[in-house]
Parts: sequence; structure tokens; C-alpha cells
Amino acid sequence: MAREKRTVEELSIWEDARAMIRKAQAEGIETVWDRLEQQTPHCRFCELGTTCSNCTMGPCRISSKKGGKMQRGVCGADADVVVARNFGRFIAGGAAGHSDHGRDLIEVLECVVEGDSSDYGIRDEAKLVRIAGELGVDTDDRSVREIAGDLVEVLYGDFGSRRREVAFLSRVPEKRREIWQALGMTPRGVDREIAEMMHRTHIGCDNDAPNTLIHAARTALADGWAGSMIGTELSDIIFGTPSPSYSTANLGVLKKDQVNILVHGHNPVVSEMILAAARMPELLDRARERGASGINIGGLCCTSNELLMRQGIPMAGNHLMTELSIVTGAVEAVVVDYQCIMPSMVQISGCYHTRFITTSGKARFTGATHFDIHPENAFEKAREIVTLAVDAFAERDASRVEIPDTPVPIMTGFSNEAILEALGGTPEPLIEAMRQGKIRGVVGIVGCNNPKFKQDSMNVGLAKALLKKDILVLVTGCVTTAAGKAGLLVPEGIEMAGPGVREVCGALGIPPVLHMGSCVDNSRILQLCGLLADALDVDISDLPVAASAPEWYSEKAAAIGLYAVASGIETHLGHPPNILGSETVTHLATEGLEDLVGARFVIEKNPEEAAELLDKRITAKRTGLGWKP
Amino acid sequence: MAREKRTVEELSIWEDARAMIRKAQAEGIETVWDRLEQQTPHCRFCELGTTCSNCTMGPCRISSKKGGKMQRGVCGADADVVVARNFGRFIAGGAAGHSDHGRDLIEVLECVVEGDSSDYGIRDEAKLVRIAGELGVDTDDRSVREIAGDLVEVLYGDFGSRRREVAFLSRVPEKRREIWQALGMTPRGVDREIAEMMHRTHIGCDNDAPNTLIHAARTALADGWAGSMIGTELSDIIFGTPSPSYSTANLGVLKKDQVNILVHGHNPVVSEMILAAARMPELLDRARERGASGINIGGLCCTSNELLMRQGIPMAGNHLMTELSIVTGAVEAVVVDYQCIMPSMVQISGCYHTRFITTSGKARFTGATHFDIHPENAFEKAREIVTLAVDAFAERDASRVEIPDTPVPIMTGFSNEAILEALGGTPEPLIEAMRQGKIRGVVGIVGCNNPKFKQDSMNVGLAKALLKKDILVLVTGCVTTAAGKAGLLVPEGIEMAGPGVREVCGALGIPPVLHMGSCVDNSRILQLCGLLADALDVDISDLPVAASAPEWYSEKAAAIGLYAVASGIETHLGHPPNILGSETVTHLATEGLEDLVGARFVIEKNPEEAAELLDKRITAKRTGLGWKP
Repeated sequence: MAREKRTVEELSIWEDARAMIRKAQAEGIETVWDRLEQQTPHCRFCELGTTCSNCTMGPCRISSKKGGKMQRGVCGADADVVVARNFGRFIAGGAAGHSDHGRDLIEVLECVVEGDSSDYGIRDEAKLVRIAGELGVDTDDRSVREIAGDLVEVLYGDFGSRRREVAFLSRVPEKRREIWQALGMTPRGVDREIAEMMHRTHIGCDNDAPNTLIHAARTALADGWAGSMIGTELSDIIFGTPSPSYSTANLGVLKKDQVNILVHGHNPVVSEMILAAARMPELLDRARERGASGINIGGLCCTSNELLMRQGIPMAGNHLMTELSIVTGAVEAVVVDYQCIMPSMVQISGCYHTRFITTSGKARFTGATHFDIHPENAFEKAREIVTLAVDAFAERDASRVEIPDTPVPIMTGFSNEAILEALGGTPEPLIEAMRQGKIRGVVGIVGCNNPKFKQDSMNVGLAKALLKKDILVLVTGCVTTAAGKAGLLVPEGIEMAGPGVREVCGALGIPPVLHMGSCVDNSRILQLCGLLADALDVDISDLPVAASAPEWYSEKAAAIGLYAVASGIETHLGHPPNILGSETVTHLATEGLEDLVGARFVIEKNPEEAAELLDKRITAKRTGLGWKP
Repeated sequence: MAREKRTVEELSIWEDARAMIRKAQAEGIETVWDRLEQQTPHCRFCELGTTCSNCTMGPCRISSKKGGKMQRGVCGADADVVVARNFGRFIAGGAAGHSDHGRDLIEVLECVVEGDSSDYGIRDEAKLVRIAGELGVDTDDRSVREIAGDLVEVLYGDFGSRRREVAFLSRVPEKRREIWQALGMTPRGVDREIAEMMHRTHIGCDNDAPNTLIHAARTALADGWAGSMIGTELSDIIFGTPSPSYSTANLGVLKKDQVNILVHGHNPVVSEMILAAARMPELLDRARERGASGINIGGLCCTSNELLMRQGIPMAGNHLMTELSIVTGAVEAVVVDYQCIMPSMVQISGCYHTRFITTSGKARFTGATHFDIHPENAFEKAREIVTLAVDAFAERDASRVEIPDTPVPIMTGFSNEAILEALGGTPEPLIEAMRQGKIRGVVGIVGCNNPKFKQDSMNVGLAKALLKKDILVLVTGCVTTAAGKAGLLVPEGIEMAGPGVREVCGALGIPPVLHMGSCVDNSRILQLCGLLADALDVDISDLPVAASAPEWYSEKAAAIGLYAVASGIETHLGHPPNILGSETVTHLATEGLEDLVGARFVIEKNPEEAAELLDKRITAKRTGLGWKP
């Protein structure tokens, strides 16, 4: 991939992206595609996963030529061990990202309970009580604050060393839990599994690739069923559980006559405050004084998904649109929290009047303006940030402003609570539609953009191909924007689906592709699978469901893929992680895991072919359930 | 280094090593030096720390040529960010190793408290009560078991998310704690800092090298003042606090007419049981039935240090002797726990009758015989392992046995408790000797072997050079064997020291180099520095002390170095970690940290030069205290 210089048309399927890439080129601004071109071809050893720098007897490289030199690193590790070690740490990085995010939400809830922050509250008290009860907290005749205090304790416990299993394992079907128990894959504490993954991959520890990979799966499960799930559930409790609503997407959501602030990253804790500050009359007045007609908050990546799901703010773009959003010249400030924020955005902001503002001590950027935001000072700091953005409006160079495209409508807000409510309170109508074959199966398309792929070609191509086969699609993360821009996130999108999905979604008045949130919200899909499996009294691996991360690139996406597979959900990837240097690891990922956990990874770069493979899985599982294929 | 084929004499300063390298060569057995030769020259990018595989937009390499292509990775990360990310994860790996080891000891103590294991007990009840009291546990009129139960709770807390600081921070001088607090470097929970390190180094998080390095230091401090310190203190409580005793070292400790079992790794939990089983009359009878005159337990690396300190078992060798110990042909079994165990030992064992036995689920080795050992079954499994080793004796090929050298005597067991006892209960006599300039300073020489260095040339060379300058030397880890083989671990070693050290150590009847334990036991040195600083009412960085890891190679050694520096102890390294690709990171490590934490890294490959540099530090600190240089 990417060996020859690609035309702008080959970089993205979207006109807003192409227009901004051309503008960047004209203005001499380097973007992610330029850097990919410089970095291509990549180091073959690194790509195969056969380099190791885990000690200074090396660095080592394992040759892919059998029988020659460099079959082992200095310590004696072979390709299998090196690849497994690297992959284990890759998963640990992803699990750490999601889970540290989840922990941050526990801290916010703790501040609310302790009365240390008046900026945050509990917007969904009913959900608080329900979740607390689910996790064994006594909820009878107790105040919300008391219940929340106990919930905080329970959830902190998931980050410690005392548990034999994380709390939300109560949501996992019994058969699945037995499989994990037998394999030593039951996640205990989130941080513990991450630290143990790092320990095992230290030189001279785990030198048996399958054993290392089992623990990688355990670490990923701690992410999915604890770190991420805590992130999702507490965000709902603190900021409100999403319900269906409309918004808009693409770079056209930027407004020529308003102060444009883009929130970017993954955690709603800061961006909710930015949104609240932007609605203050004093700041709106200030904006008007500076010639703007208002303050427009748009989103990028998962911070955007969080605010889109709950507050309906428009989605400016996904991963590969983040640099390009600044190139419009219409953005006064990009306010970031953490994860997937290209460091290059500092430099690109510097080419315009754009203020690049960091807010987390865990994600400082050299050259950025930093506001150290805690639950205790969040709203006050947010007000300062919005003020700074408003004042920057005066520096906007109108001659360099180009806002491409007009926004497209999207429907959002499909939390499990919203889905169940639409179904009348139980999953039975969905199961019945699946049993009848109107909805032949369900696939969650999740993950990222990666400049190695024509932007969103896989994300959209796969969604469309699956819909034609009457397979319902759920989306999160960067796939949200892709599906939205393709017209799949509105009820009218059913025209692109097969007759069954058209009938069911048409009757319910919902899109054929349901937006379920951010990347941590893949935990909603896990929970939904647990609900469906329990309703049918089967294991998750018996369900006609699958997952895909067609254009993935991050460690978090790999962790998501691995917790999906370990939970029994076959998962398609558009390209493999850096594991091909080990036959053992590659075979385990794409074949062997099927025997262990009843699911595996499928690698396929063509979206139509990928749809065929996922359909094959769904057909087999339908047959297994005694349903017509 | 190591660009040309080195002669056997150039690989090690020791005759036992050279003899076995020659034997391995004659028998066609590949060793670590052969693999290093194959891996040399190393990848220059990896060596500089400028490769990144933390997402699949790459892998990326940052060019060291300024102004050309590949100045940034695909995400936009520059050399500073990439190097800092890699170094942060390197430290996380080391901290995870030590700390997961510490956690394992909490679990053993918990089993003792719960009555789930009769194989372990509390050998030093006085220390249990003292440590528990130190950490705030009520010890009045309570049973040992109750106190131990509360101590378990306190120490598990150090692995959670609730603490604002780890428990043993009470041992840190007030001035030092203020520095950490101001820098955001105070370690909270061990696993938390590790997980946050992984999060920060995920793509699109921390993109400011100094900020990343501050957290790396925080992670390392969590290792030193929590993970490792817990490992040390609980090992003392469970297996006994070391006191001075004699043993022997080098490959000559293997016995021609006995069943030789080598314990290897880092944690005494399994090896203490192996030792106990080997003393069972039924197994000694079994050995005699098979023609052996006894069962000889020797040690390798830090598991050996643990058993040497407390049980006086002989030390067969350090890191680079581990493969060579098997080449003697006289080893029936190598029983390993985890860390620094070369995977190649499986293959080398396969060339002899040697059984290679793994005992930890966290460190399986493809091709090894595995016994899954827990506190609940430890002694029973140990008995099975020793039985297996005894039975292997019959397969020993006498014609291939070659035990080089005769063992040298060493004195061991210098815990802080033992040192204080020798000094009459207070550090005052040591301080007085330092004040008078008889002991001009104290340097801890710690860490590893690395085949890039002539084995132990630096470890021994530096120790001798420092002693001549009347600087007292403390050793742990692999430097123990080096010092022992050099004759420095016996009272007669004072002949190699300057007049002051000779006088003081001579009067006390102790060696000029004190063996303080394994690598986790560097926490003893931290504690000692805290005691000295408090006694003088100064910060640790004001003391005439320093550290060195001359031949280091592992992530754990890097974590030790960083916690030493962050604790205010200047630390010499024989070669740098893979950070030279970033001027910012390199400058911070070797200069900038001095301004932040009052200590820095010093890189020097010549032992005499290194001694000069450390002496310079000590002289300056003596002057600072108003003492004669």
C-alpha cells in the first residue's frame, strides 16, 4: 500500500476531505498523507513484528529466512516470542488508554459524591441506581449520593488487585465465563492485567507465544468488560444516557460567521464544560462584540461521539479529518483531551490563527497552550478557553477561509437503553426479527481511519455490502462519521438495505445503521450481545453477530478487536497487526482462537469480500441456532 | 562495540566463564555471545530509540538527519516524542517486573493469613510488627495474624487507585517529597502509574517529551518505594531478615558427585520450597540410591541472591553465567521463576540431560517442563521437581562433565537491620566515619551483565577504583557475583581499599563491599539513604552517595536507575538506554534532571573514568555538607 504517490481522489472518498487536502497542498502544509509517503516503505522487520528493543543486549531483529543467521535475539527469543511480546504490549497500550479514561470518570463521580466539584452532577439518577443495584450496592432507602459513593468504591475495586473478576462480569453469559475460567482468561483487575502484561513481556519472562497471547486476551477483556464499560456507564450517569436525536456531520458543520471551537479526543469530561461555557450569555455577547454571530461547538473523533450522542453537537469529522478541519481556516480553537490527537495539529494550527489547547496533564503537546483541568476547576477553565477562542476570532483571515460541503443530517443516540425502549422494553422483537431472517445478523463496524486506506472506503463499503445482505449494522468511533456522510445514519438510509432490514427499520422509523457512541461505547455492543445470548440461553459465540474494524490503526482498536474475539465475536480487520513475522501467532489469531474461544480474526482488505466472510459466519451461526440461513 | 569477532579472553574476565565458552564452542552450542555477534550491527534507528510501532499508520522511523524527510512519524510525532514514548514504556516494563513480584509476595502473606498455605509462614515476626506499625497498622495487643492481615490490606492499597501516595513514602525525607509534589512525581499506586505510562504513550496522548519523562520517573518511584520495597520487606518477613554469613561463589559450587539443582529468576517463593524439599531425608535417600552423595542447591541471578542472603546457598553465577552453568554438564535441573531467564536455556538444556523447569504461569517457556506452582501447592510441587532432578542424575554423561575453578568464599547478608546492628543500632557511627572522611562516600553498584561488555570488567573495575578512593561499595543483583569472585566480599578484601575504608571495615570485621541482596533489594539502599538524610536533616541529594549500573541491560535496571536519580542519587551507567535519537531526552537525562531532582545520569564506559566522575559528585556533596572533600 501507499508505495506510489496517490492522487487526491485516491486518498479519500469524500469531497470535503479532497478539497482540504488540495488547499493544504496549495498552502504548503504537510498532512498525514505526506508523512505516510515519506515513511513508505516501512521497516520490514517492524512491520512483521520481529524487532525487539525490550533490553539493551539488543536491539534485535529476527530474520524471516529460516535456517540462517538472526533466528533468535541476543537473549534467545525467537520470532514467535518477539512477535507475541510486541503484540502483548500493543494490547496493553490500548487497554490502558480506554481504562485510564474509565478511571477518570470514577474520579469525577467521586468528586461529585465528596462535594469537591459543583461543575458536574448526576444527570441520570435512575441509571445510577440501576447500575449500582446490578453491581450489588444496596439501593433501598438510600440517597443518590450514598449510592453513588458505594458505586465509586465498587468500581475502584476493578482497578485494584483484590478481585478475582471484574464487577461487570455479571453481564457475561455463564458459558462464556466458564471458557475464560478454564483458559485463565478471566480478567481480575484492569491495571493488574496491564502491569502483568508488561511484566510478562520483560526479557526472560513469558517465552511461550500462546501463553503470552492468552494474557493479552485477558488484558483486553479487562478493557472491554471493565475499563471501557465503566467509561460508558459513568458517562451516561454523569452526563445523561443517550436517546435518539438528530444532528449533522462533515466539515460543513463549521460556520463562516461564528466562532468555531472543535473539541477533540475521547473523554466528555472537559468538552461538556466547553459546551456549557459556550452557551453562557456573557461569552455569546463577547463573540458578538468581536463580529461573530455566535459560538459553534463541533466535534472530532470520539470526544465528538460523546457529545453527539448526548448533546447533539455536530460532527466535523473523523481521524483523517482532524488536520483538515484546521485547514479550513475557520477554526478558532481546537480543544483536546487525549488519545488519537495527531501531534502535527500543533504545527498546522500554527499556520492559521487557530489556538491549539491541551487540557490533560497526561497529554501535553510541545507548543500547545495548556490549561490543567480537574473536576474542581473544570467550568472556570472552560470559560477561559472559550474566551480565548472568541478573542481569536478577530485574527481569522477571511481570505483563507474555505468551508467545503454542506452538512448532512444524521440520527444518533442509540444506547442500549434507547434500543430496548424502541423495542418495547425487551430484546424479544429484535430476536424475533433475527429468527425470521428479516435481520439475518448484526455486525458492529468500529474503529478508525488509517491513511493506508482510501479514507472511509472500507468503512462505508462494508456497511453497504452488509446492509444488502439484510445484516443490521451498528457503528461507533470514526465509523460514525463515515456512515453519516454516506447517508446511512438517517431513516431514509433503509433504501440502501435489503428487504428485511428495510421492513424492520422502516417500521421502527430508525436508520439501518445505528450509532451507538464512541470507541469506549463498544462496551454497549458487548452488553447487547450478552443480553441477546442470555435471552436465547446460548453463548455469545453462538449468535449471528460479528464485528469489524476495517480501517483500524490504534492500539485501542486492537484491544477492542481482541476483547470482541475473546468474547466470542468473530472480528474482521482490514489489515493485520504487526504479527505476520510469527506463524504461531498469526495462526492462533486467524485460526487457533476459534478452538479456544469460539471466534477468530479475519483479515480482508476488500469490503465486498469481507462482507462475504462475515455473512458466512452469520449464516453458520443461524444454522446452529436452527434458524433458516 | 562487538563489531569484530572477539576472542574468548575478551568476553569475560573470569576463568570459569572462559572455560565454559570454549566447551560450548567445542560442542557446537550457541551462546549469548554468538547471538550478539549475529545481531551486530544493530538497527541504528532502534538503537537511537527513533522507531515507533505504537500504531499501524506506521511503523515509523525518524531520521537523524535534520531538515530532510522522515522528520516526523505518520501521526506527526518527532524524534523527541518517539524516544520519550519508547523510554516511558521501557521504564514501565521494568517497574512492572519488580512490582508484580512484590504483589506475589503480598499474595503469599495473604495465603498465610487466610490459612490457605501451610508451606509458608512468618519467620520474622518482629519485623512484621515493626513494618506494620511503621505503616500505621495498630499493633497493640493483637495477634501476629491480625496484624499481618491488616498489613496485607495496606500493601494491596499500593496497587490500587485510591492512594494519593504509596505507603512507604513515609521513609522519604520531607524535602524530597516536596520536590516530587511540585513536579507531579509523587507515586500514587504502582499499577496505576504503569497503566498511565502506557496510556500516555498511546498515539495521540503525551506529545511533550519532558512531560512523558516526568511520568516515567513517577512510575520508577512507584517501583522503588513501593513495588520493590514491598518485595524486599515481605520477603524478609516471610523468609527471614538476612544477617551476615558466609557462602561461596562461581561455577565451582557445582558438585561432581551430587545432584545439582540451580534455582534461577528473581522471586524466593518457589526456590525456598525447592531448598526445603532438597533437605528431605526421603529425597536424599533417593539421591543416594541413584549414586549421588547428596543434593546440591545452587543459585543463578537474583533468585540466588535471595537464597544466598537468607539461607547461604552458594552462587553459581550471574546473568552471563546462566547458559554456561548448563554447559558444565553437571546440572540435573534448572528451576526458574521469572525475569532475565534467557529463552535459549531451553535449547542448551536439551543438549544435556538437564531438566529445564518453569514454575510461574507468567513465565512459560516453549519446550520446558512446567509445574504450575501456587502458595497452596508449593511444597508438594517442589518435592516433585526435586524428585525429577534426582532421577535425572542417572542420565548425566560423566564424560561431558567439566566443573571449572574452585569456589571462592563470600560474605553476605547485609540487610539494613544487620548494618544497623553492626553499627550499634544507629547510623551515627557510619555518619561519623563519613564526616571524618574515612569513608568518603558510598556507592551502590548494581545491575546486570551485558555481553556488549567484557563480563564483569566494569563491575569489578569500578568497585576497585572506588575502594581506592575510600568510597564504600554496596552491591546487589549480578554485581554480587562479580564482587565475590574478585575477592571483595570477604573481610580480607580491605587490602584492596584505601586506608580509611580499610580502617573502618577492618575494625568492624566486614568486607569493603557489602552484599545487600537482589535487584528488588535496591530498595534497602533507598531506605538507607533516607535514614542517612534524615539523620543529617538534609535531602538525599545532599548526601555523598551515588549509584552505578555499569553493565546493565534490562528494563528493570533502567527503572532502578531512574528511581535512584529521581530520589536524588546520581547514577552512572556503562552505556545509555536507547535515547540518543533525542537531544531533548538525552539532555534531560544527563543534565536537566539535575535542576529538577538534584541528580542526573552519567554515562561512561571506562570504569576508572566513571570512578572519577562519581568521586567528583561525592566530593562536591561532602563540601556541601561542610565536610573536608
